[in-house]
This record gives sequence, C-alpha cells and structure tokens, in this order.
Amino acid sequence: MNTTNTRKVDLIQPNEYFIIQDLIFEWARAIDENRVEDIAKLLNSQGRYTVKSRFNHDRDLPLAVIDCHSAAQLRDRILSMRLANVYEPQHYRHMISGIQVTDRQGQIIHTRSNFMVVRTMELDGEVKVIFTGQAQDIIELQGSDAKFKERLMLFDSRVIETLLVIPI
Amino acid sequence: MNTTNTRKVDLIQPNEYFIIQDLIFEWARAIDENRVEDIAKLLNSQGRYTVKSRFNHDRDLPLAVIDCHSAAQLRDRILSMRLANVYEPQHYRHMISGIQVTDRQGQIIHTRSNFMVVRTMELDGEVKVIFTGQAQDIIELQGSDAKFKERLMLFDSRVIETLLVIPI
Amino acid sequence: MNTTNTRKVDLIQPNEYFIIQDLIFEWARAIDENRVEDIAKLLNSQGRYTVKSRFNHDRDLPLAVIDCHSAAQLRDRILSMRLANVYEPQHYRHMISGIQVTDRQGQIIHTRSNFMVVRTMELDGEVKVIFTGQAQDIIELQGSDAKFKERLMLFDSRVIETLLVIPI
Repeated sequence: MNTTNTRKVDLIQPNEYFIIQDLIFEWARAIDENRVEDIAKLLNSQGRYTVKSRFNHDRDLPLAVIDCHSAAQLRDRILSMRLANVYEPQHYRHMISGIQVTDRQGQIIHTRSNFMVVRTMELDGEVKVIFTGQAQDIIELQGSDAKFKERLMLFDSRVIETLLVIPI
Repeated sequence: MNTTNTRKVDLIQPNEYFIIQDLIFEWARAIDENRVEDIAKLLNSQGRYTVKSRFNHDRDLPLAVIDCHSAAQLRDRILSMRLANVYEPQHYRHMISGIQVTDRQGQIIHTRSNFMVVRTMELDGEVKVIFTGQAQDIIELQGSDAKFKERLMLFDSRVIETLLVIPI
Repeated sequence: MNTTNTRKVDLIQPNEYFIIQDLIFEWARAIDENRVEDIAKLLNSQGRYTVKSRFNHDRDLPLAVIDCHSAAQLRDRILSMRLANVYEPQHYRHMISGIQVTDRQGQIIHTRSNFMVVRTMELDGEVKVIFTGQAQDIIELQGSDAKFKERLMLFDSRVIETLLVIPI
C-alpha cells in the first residue's frame, strides 16, 4: 500500500476540514439513502472514481472493479445499475473513520480515510460486513464547497463475494 | 427513507459542530459505560426518543420498538430495564459515523448520522454486530450545551434478534 | 469500567481537537498501513501503552496483553514481532469513533474514544471483527503536535482468539 507517514494537520483550517469531511460523508449517505445518482454530482466532470483491491493496488496490477474516468461515465454506470441489473434487494450502511489530510497544493487537498460497508438484505434481514478499506482522495476546495478530483477506494479483501452492483 | 440531499455545511460554526458531535457521542458512551440513566438527561423534558426499523418507517407503519414522549418516560423505561428485566449479561459498543447538519432554524439543528452497535456477551465473549442504522436528530443548542428535542433511530434490519433490552 | 460522565466540550479549542484527533487517527493508520514502527514515535519517551481486557480492568486484575512502559520498550516489542514471530499474513483496519475530551490540566488532555479492529487474512480473504473497545488516553499537546503520555486500550471481549501479534 502506498503509505504516507507525514501528518499535515496544520495544512488545513477547521472550516476547510469540515467541508472535506462533509463531502466524504455525503458520498456515503447518498448511497445509503438509495439516491446513488447524487454521487456523480460530487465528482469533478473530469474526475476519476476507482474501486480496487488493496492486493492488486500493492502489486500495480491494473484490474479494478469500477474505474470511471468522468462524472458522465459514473452516471452511465449508475443508470445501468438501475435499469439493467437484476439483484436481490439490499442496502448499504457506511461507516467512515480517520479522515486525515496528508498533502496540499493550493486548493487541492489529499486525504486518507477508512471505510466499512455493512450490507442488509431486504428479504431475510441478513447483516454482513462486506467491505473494509482505505479511501485515497484528491479533493478540490471550491469556496464553501468541494468536489472529488480523484477517489480511489482500496478494499482489503481479495475476493468480492458477489458482483459489485452498487458503488461504494 | 426520508432523504435529504441538501448539504448545509455552512449553516454551522466549528464550535457548534463540536457541541452537537459531543452530545451524540455522549449518548453512545453513557450506554457503553453502563450508565444508561444518563441518556435521559440528554433529552429535553418534552423530547421524544424513538427506535424503529427503517422498513416500518419507509412505509409509515407506526410500530416502534421504543417510543418515549418525554425524558420522564425514558427514565421509567430504563428503571424497568434495571429492575424487572432478566437478561444475559451483555454490553454494547457504539460506532458513530457521518454526522451531517441538514437543516437549521435558529438554535434548532437537524442532523443525520450513522450508527453501528456491537454487542459482547459476558459469559461466552461472543462479539456480534447487532445494529446498523441512521439517526435523524433534532437538537437544541443551549449556549455551550445542547439537548435532543427529537431522536429518531432507524435500524436497517427488519428483525430484532432478541428483545431490545438496552436502549441504543 | 471507570466511567466519566462529565462532558468537557468547552475545555478545548477546535484546532486543539483536530491535533488530538489526528494523533489518534495516525496511530491507527500506521498499523493499518503496515508501518507499525511509526506508533513508537507517537508515544512520549517515558509514555505507557497498555492493552487489557475490560473484564480484567473492571476487577483491577493486573494481567495485560501488552504493557510497555516506554517508547523504547514498544520499539523492542515491534521489532520482535517483525523478526521472531511466525504468523499467517494478515492486516488490520481500524475504525475510530466518539473522541471526547473528559479532562484537562494545562497541555495534558484526557480523552475517551471507541475503536473497532477488522482483520483480513491474506490467504483466504476472511474478514472478521476481532476487537471492539474503549481507548482511555492521556495526551500531551506540544504546540501544533501532540503525543501520547498514556494509552490504555480496553477491549470488550474476555477472550483473545489468537495470540495478539500486532499492536492495536
């Protein structure tokens, strides 16, 4: 894993931290509240969103589960999820932890955070931790708002139990 | 689920966010530290505390697992838990994530946050994720303090494995 | 459990809270990113780091899983983990929640927080919640930095499934 041991807590003001934190929380909540379409609005038009195993990432293997090179491509993927995919009714619950700023160039902020996704199946109510991992984000501050320039989500497990139908 | 896609990060000052965050954390810690009585002090005297499944809430079904209409009623319920209920020794560990402010009128703040409750049984040490869900809170700022006006906790699973003996 | 019901949100400034939060997050991330050596740098040279079950702690039983009385001793322990121990490849993912300030004397800050550690095995990809618990920390603010003076991590389960090879 590409590690960063330089803590940069003094690179950011409290109000800027809250803007970044809220962006990361909003992405998670949009998915949890089944308004997945909204996450495309949180990505820069030329932004990139990638979901990949930590195992592949550590070995520079290119294979990713999701790899969108623009907000438009992410919108297409979500549309296809809504229209085409057949899957058992389920929903996600995100837990986010440990948001740290690791680098900054002007309004471009690099962060690390941990995520955990718990899935509940509608039919039998089964509850399961399906993902844990680290998000490596590059975020662009835009006044009192912010958007993702790059969102790389590295999950810990090598196996994805089922087809990943919903973005994380 | 009643969704809110308007982010309102600019509605609140950093010190106000910390007051609200600490209120939500304190509720969780009081339960985790087995001083459940203390949560009644965090609810306005005429406040409401409801625990309900997301499934029932989405369908406007009235059935709730807990529904207290005042701090006094919550105190009664906790007293009854201490005196009357017989249950296997257990304790909770709360994880809270994603506290976002979604609306504000004066000192009244609306928030969303995610919770996860992990239960450990005293006897055999079994560890289990028993709840995940979203808290929809209405909080009243009172100077450097705050209290819950309404605390609605929606859990994801349709089934509650055992009788809910401890508030969450 | 030694409980603290006094909330002290007004004892600390937003920027001080962020310094403390970042210290706690950095400890977790150093372990998750497999640069465990770095946690010794986050402990005062005469600092103490203890991992103990809540059960033993509540009964004043002295037995701890880890009990280092200095940063040097912690470094030795990590070195021994790297050199001597044979264990199945695995890594941790920390979730931290509920950081609250409970007391303060000058630059010495007392905090409580909850932790959850999820372990993923490299070979079969098994994902498991192996720890939940409460950290009781005493932190020394040093300008825009901070270090642990005492870090007491109380885990909820009485049983540790396997030998604890990696610090938490």
